[in-house]
Amino acid sequence: MRRLVLAVLVLLLPLAGCQSAPEETAAEISPASLPSWNDVASRAQILEFLERTTTEGSADFVAPEDRIAVFDNDGTLWSEQPAYFQLMFVRDRVREMLPQHPEWQGMTIYEAALSDDPAKIRSIGSAGMMELVTATHAGMTPEEFTAIVRPWIETAKHPRFDRKYTELVFQPMLELMDLLRAHGYRVYIVSGGGITFLRAWAEEVYGVIPQQVIGSMLVLEYTEESDGPVLRRAPRLDTLNDGPGKPVQIMKFIGQRPTIAVGNSDGDYEMLAWTTAGSGPRLGMLIHHTDADREWAYDKESSVGRLQRGLDDAGRRGWVVVDMKTDWGKVYPWQ
Amino acid sequence: MRRLVLAVLVLLLPLAGCQSAPEETAAEISPASLPSWNDVASRAQILEFLERTTTEGSADFVAPEDRIAVFDNDGTLWSEQPAYFQLMFVRDRVREMLPQHPEWQGMTIYEAALSDDPAKIRSIGSAGMMELVTATHAGMTPEEFTAIVRPWIETAKHPRFDRKYTELVFQPMLELMDLLRAHGYRVYIVSGGGITFLRAWAEEVYGVIPQQVIGSMLVLEYTEESDGPVLRRAPRLDTLNDGPGKPVQIMKFIGQRPTIAVGNSDGDYEMLAWTTAGSGPRLGMLIHHTDADREWAYDKESSVGRLQRGLDDAGRRGWVVVDMKTDWGKVYPWQ
Repeated sequence: MRRLVLAVLVLLLPLAGCQSAPEETAAEISPASLPSWNDVASRAQILEFLERTTTEGSADFVAPEDRIAVFDNDGTLWSEQPAYFQLMFVRDRVREMLPQHPEWQGMTIYEAALSDDPAKIRSIGSAGMMELVTATHAGMTPEEFTAIVRPWIETAKHPRFDRKYTELVFQPMLELMDLLRAHGYRVYIVSGGGITFLRAWAEEVYGVIPQQVIGSMLVLEYTEESDGPVLRRAPRLDTLNDGPGKPVQIMKFIGQRPTIAVGNSDGDYEMLAWTTAGSGPRLGMLIHHTDADREWAYDKESSVGRLQRGLDDAGRRGWVVVDMKTDWGKVYPWQ
Repeated sequence: MRRLVLAVLVLLLPLAGCQSAPEETAAEISPASLPSWNDVASRAQILEFLERTTTEGSADFVAPEDRIAVFDNDGTLWSEQPAYFQLMFVRDRVREMLPQHPEWQGMTIYEAALSDDPAKIRSIGSAGMMELVTATHAGMTPEEFTAIVRPWIETAKHPRFDRKYTELVFQPMLELMDLLRAHGYRVYIVSGGGITFLRAWAEEVYGVIPQQVIGSMLVLEYTEESDGPVLRRAPRLDTLNDGPGKPVQIMKFIGQRPTIAVGNSDGDYEMLAWTTAGSGPRLGMLIHHTDADREWAYDKESSVGRLQRGLDDAGRRGWVVVDMKTDWGKVYPWQ
């Protein structure tokens, strides 16, 4: 009899486990899944939302194929002060390329880009940055551009912390993305930053594959060259993935309205507004930078990551506002 | 002693299985995986390519995250004669909307669209189709458009076979897509057809989720309306996903060069050329329509799905040409 039981168990062995391991049971939904979050309302709201959208039988259950979460990058997943980190990359490119471009000398925008003064660099703004991007990043293939980004991201250091930029990612957001994925959500980045710049490191740093990164982009041109067909980055903007551009790009790339949208500035306003205007359960979340000691404190008056309309309307629209200082036990992974 | 073995086995039970079920072991790579393909060179080439790109230790092993296969739709996954099926949808939309648009009476392009003569409908061409598309499909949200496509695709019948258009998909290609997916390939559709039109039914028919459908698209506009933020399809073309547009869109959406590209017309030439110009193992494949009895026979002279450059260069570029008549034991699932 025991031998029979044993034989049955041995036969069952290869079948077991797989059927009992669907995404639903992968990780518990509990405060322990968000260890860097304090015991605050925002954490409770996240856990409660996750619980009711992923529990079968719940009135707010969202089918796995519809579980999509979109995250802004600058200021939402990593810091953005004293200037967008991609702008620091652009500055370093301008410095490297300057010897070959004497015509840049004396031009305001290049002078600003070459400065070590964050305020001056910042003054370039999005439009100036786009001009510098086209001047420094075009004319090559996406693969060649990626090969320039990778060593930079692996070595360049942030002036305030003397740490790599990828060390300035927010530990609580890494935990949130992991928790969402463990419950069947597909996590997308929807950033105003360059799509190829982001794709060069987003998988390693955030676990987000290239196909789930949406960003601003240059025009790509197909040409038949002597050694074969080539895609080349043209010195013209194709898409600025900011403001109303975000929901538009989400619909193009993803083809459906997300369940969750997370941002930190008014450039994310339309993404959150459109996401949470959908029927059924939707979660909109804003990261409010309130912690000058551990990170930075800024909102309505900031030239980078300005947040005014979002704060004004969060209550009316039902968005969760995360107060970085009070809500996060830890900001960066190494703190 | 036996009790101990039993206890150990019981403890092991939940762990077993999962670790032994990675994608590699999911399905055997054998002719049996492509039952609707005859014992021909093209089938052998597919199986051999799959074997060497998914067998660990093989010199041509492709990491799972890089296994991407792109398929054209019209003429590659389903038929496209006597006119693109989406054109039949456009015709039906024009008919439905005509009572509200007396101004369309007598206009050449609408007259042609309303005809039952395939040659006349076909004469509209891509440009004409785009004009009709903007006239009939704009001004609404993507969700509203989807709600129009779905009942049409579920009821409209092809004049020759008196079968639903989705019954005119190619059984051998369904098998190929399944086999690729079973071996860790992500399957994308990269079509000249409309992205929202395709996404409305591609998952049900092909098992391809909306995020893996790339197509032509109208401009989307974000507006704040009285009942909230809305995305609306504008009557302007945003992207024509054909010819050189295909590799460009692939790079934007997917961010990497595919391993496998499958098409059937010269509109797929650049997609195949760019894909197979990549280093490492690459597979380009053209479906050659040679079977007038079971499907249609056409190539260099055809106004729809014209295939000349592809046939001329297939040998030089190392592309596999699938002869529908000799290579496929079955064309449609119901044959």
